[in-house]
Amino acid sequence: MDARPIGVFDSGLGGLTALRELARLMPEEDLIYFGDTGRVPYGGRSKDILVKYARQDVAFLRTFDPKAIVIACGTVSTTALDVLQAENDIPIFGVVESAAHAAVQITQNGRVGLIGTRASIRSGAYERALNALRPGTDVTARACPLLVPLVENGRFQPGDIVAETVVCEYLAPIKAAGVDTLILGCTHYPLMKPIFGACMGPGVTLVDVGEQCARWVKKQLEWNGLRNERPGAGRHRYYVSDSTEDFSALASVFLGEDVAGEVEQIDITAY
Amino acid sequence: MDARPIGVFDSGLGGLTALRELARLMPEEDLIYFGDTGRVPYGGRSKDILVKYARQDVAFLRTFDPKAIVIACGTVSTTALDVLQAENDIPIFGVVESAAHAAVQITQNGRVGLIGTRASIRSGAYERALNALRPGTDVTARACPLLVPLVENGRFQPGDIVAETVVCEYLAPIKAAGVDTLILGCTHYPLMKPIFGACMGPGVTLVDVGEQCARWVKKQLEWNGLRNERPGAGRHRYYVSDSTEDFSALASVFLGEDVAGEVEQIDITAY
Repeated sequence: MDARPIGVFDSGLGGLTALRELARLMPEEDLIYFGDTGRVPYGGRSKDILVKYARQDVAFLRTFDPKAIVIACGTVSTTALDVLQAENDIPIFGVVESAAHAAVQITQNGRVGLIGTRASIRSGAYERALNALRPGTDVTARACPLLVPLVENGRFQPGDIVAETVVCEYLAPIKAAGVDTLILGCTHYPLMKPIFGACMGPGVTLVDVGEQCARWVKKQLEWNGLRNERPGAGRHRYYVSDSTEDFSALASVFLGEDVAGEVEQIDITAY
Repeated sequence: MDARPIGVFDSGLGGLTALRELARLMPEEDLIYFGDTGRVPYGGRSKDILVKYARQDVAFLRTFDPKAIVIACGTVSTTALDVLQAENDIPIFGVVESAAHAAVQITQNGRVGLIGTRASIRSGAYERALNALRPGTDVTARACPLLVPLVENGRFQPGDIVAETVVCEYLAPIKAAGVDTLILGCTHYPLMKPIFGACMGPGVTLVDVGEQCARWVKKQLEWNGLRNERPGAGRHRYYVSDSTEDFSALASVFLGEDVAGEVEQIDITAY
């Protein structure tokens, strides 16, 4: 039994898709979300800058004395997880390991597709995790730098010719490789699931990394006696590094419901 | 006669289109370019964050004792010029005033179109400048948040269905308003000139804000006796806030030639 909150962070608001799943699976837990909206997006930045930003994000969340921190960001999970785990004495969860576990359980033919930001794909983190769990897994990976801007501009609905054209271009080599499983390696991507599904066809299972991560975190907290068993709904607090003005409208797109909770702007460079 | 360098900055590399024009018009001047690649893009950020970032950009450039600073960024020019001018005792040039002068000279029917980032359009800066010079100018403005990501991902060539579709969607209300002049209010946009031209048709003149700004700066320096009259080619130095690794390849796209000069990474948050 541990009533301390769970910290969750992302470069921006995409991580809210993971927060939504955490809240659904563990409604009684207090959740603190930080979105680095003053420095979003992370996906095209270098490893050094990403590590610097991620350290500040964790340092901010640690001011709330969390029992665990969830990196609800594919880019940071693939690029800075080791550093963050080595520097912190509380559990730090990324999205890679849980997604790799799900993918090796799903795949029948051993061919797995992977899409993510430039930094995520460059890291090779998913390939390493998949091959550690199932040696010889054939991974076809593709960086998709335009998907985050498209999603953040509301262009993820089936029928949007721009979104569909870009997605089909990115997925063409993955489809050609005959994968039966596709890892959506960025927390922005779940909003595009209908387009990914239509493009890949019914024989391919999509793995939502935020959803898998939330299940993983729940199990880990349970196994380690860290769940909050107090009855009642947990408190959700949101922090961003740019103005809170646009937060609620965009956040509701990612959460799939109105944002109920406090939203506050902080200076992330002070951490 | 003043041999000190000219400082130039942008959120990222789009400002190099203005630097290119400055170098073409004033080959003997030393130019120092700073691209805030660790925090790019600026266009969707709030005014407070933009002012904070712009102050740091100027503080960094001032360490070189420049005779003038050029804001080669539509977003900062529209949002933070007044603050920067009030706080600095050297000339600070933005892209708005020179573009407005060009547009009112070009337009015959008094209908001017304007495209830019969200922050640029929200500021209303171009409308104020145009109406101060030519009262009653009818401005049709449109924020185009996807154009910077498209250009930065190399999608600006005619025939690119995604770039053409997005541009035509954005320009439709501007075209419908019957403008004869279109201000390209962001230094990333010159690379898309052929697509803008094809979409708007031959009766519409495109105003490149970086090009107009470079001409304006040259005149202002001449009128104030601030030109460098030393013969020979000026020295060009480049600084970025993220890794220099990807700089040269992307920079050559914006400069239209190979980057000749030093490139160095700095920590912009230290300024």
